Amino acid sequence: MIRNKLSVIKVGGNIIDNEKQLKLFLNNFKKISGLKILVHGGGKIATKISKKLKINSEIIDGRRITDKSTLDIIAMVYAGKINKNIVSNLQSINCNAIGLSGPDGNTIEAKKRPIKKINYGFVGDITKINMELLVLLLNNEYTPVICSLSHDKKGQLLNTNADTIAASVAISLSINYDVNLFYCFEKNGVLDLIGDKKSVINHLDYIGYTKLKQKGVIDGGMVPKIDNCFDALKNGVKIVKIGSIKMINSNIPHTKIVI
Amino acid sequence: MIRNKLSVIKVGGNIIDNEKQLKLFLNNFKKISGLKILVHGGGKIATKISKKLKINSEIIDGRRITDKSTLDIIAMVYAGKINKNIVSNLQSINCNAIGLSGPDGNTIEAKKRPIKKINYGFVGDITKINMELLVLLLNNEYTPVICSLSHDKKGQLLNTNADTIAASVAISLSINYDVNLFYCFEKNGVLDLIGDKKSVINHLDYIGYTKLKQKGVIDGGMVPKIDNCFDALKNGVKIVKIGSIKMINSNIPHTKIVI
Repeated sequence: MIRNKLSVIKVGGNIIDNEKQLKLFLNNFKKISGLKILVHGGGKIATKISKKLKINSEIIDGRRITDKSTLDIIAMVYAGKINKNIVSNLQSINCNAIGLSGPDGNTIEAKKRPIKKINYGFVGDITKINMELLVLLLNNEYTPVICSLSHDKKGQLLNTNADTIAASVAISLSINYDVNLFYCFEKNGVLDLIGDKKSVINHLDYIGYTKLKQKGVIDGGMVPKIDNCFDALKNGVKIVKIGSIKMINSNIPHTKIVI
Repeated sequence: MIRNKLSVIKVGGNIIDNEKQLKLFLNNFKKISGLKILVHGGGKIATKISKKLKINSEIIDGRRITDKSTLDIIAMVYAGKINKNIVSNLQSINCNAIGLSGPDGNTIEAKKRPIKKINYGFVGDITKINMELLVLLLNNEYTPVICSLSHDKKGQLLNTNADTIAASVAISLSINYDVNLFYCFEKNGVLDLIGDKKSVINHLDYIGYTKLKQKGVIDGGMVPKIDNCFDALKNGVKIVKIGSIKMINSNIPHTKIVI
């Protein structure tokens, strides 16, 4: 059986926050040949709207602490504003996008994270991806655009990290396809020297990652991101790369995660 | 060829605004046998959030005037908050719901309404329903939950009346199915005497409608709603009823629109 190629692309928050950057990104996304899925979270728009509505949310280790009001904002901003903005933009350039959040067709089922040292609030750890729905849509030439909102199938929406969703979707679909996973953001990859844009690491293995983590070069939200990369490679995903979306169709520097 | 039955149900804003009423409604919706589609708009939640964000929106003849900021709120509240709340609630009672807005898979394509006497702002008049997507989902046992947000396929989201969307979806799918269209709200039907809940009109034809409009008994948002009912019946929809969701599975009074 010939296996089709599938690209799972995660877009970073700083790109989403910038309308011009986002349009450029979506134009490049559109040009990717073959089957593809886009995954996105929020960025600073949720924080901005929270502030206007006088709701404060805390971030620990790159993860937002999600109380009831913050979850409400996330549902509105991720599944409403951002997802529909991305989907309508893709539709305008003839990419037949369809927006999905966790509850939609049970795309992302999760379990509320148990309270240990930190109470993350309404945060969900993924238990199941509905790959049948994604395969159905892909087979019918739709491009799923998944936002980082999950649910527990008991009526509770949950906040789930978009990087983790991208990895879980990629892993789950690697049963059906040869999956390449791309974490795209405003930089060209993981940097060896903080602030030096030219110091992109071409290949990052687990030993290298551990060293950079110890040195404090890799920290914050990059830690769970790279953990997700290794997790994906260990569980059937063929290629995992971090960098600009341009890395997919050109030879510009980027970071390839290797095991 | 045996034609399947399809129920298109529109849920009113006052039900959406009341969490308990909404749960009851969704439980009744779940019990409807055969293929079904739910259509919803917003209600007062959008207005409340607009106020908190200090955005004011005007309503003329039951239709909201939609400027850029109001459109933003509509995308967040209709496609985000309300749609995902309904979908996750349906999922929790084993109804395999999937949320859709206009841009999703190009479900509802519309044209920005030309400025005549009134400038409605970013309001869309429907030009196309993607019935192929709806049929694909229905055939695969998904229940579409459509919110009243359309797009122009040029990257612009648009606000479209939910009653009109329900009628357009019903008309468009009457090529494939025997479609029954139900406008559900907090009352038992169209009333003959304002304020008298027991005065439900059982059958309303065009002459009766015209008379009640002249008397001022039918006004505001009910006028375009009933116009949509007649439009649906003239264009292939089998049955159109207005009342409580209970009218679908029981014999309680309701208004049947007849031509």
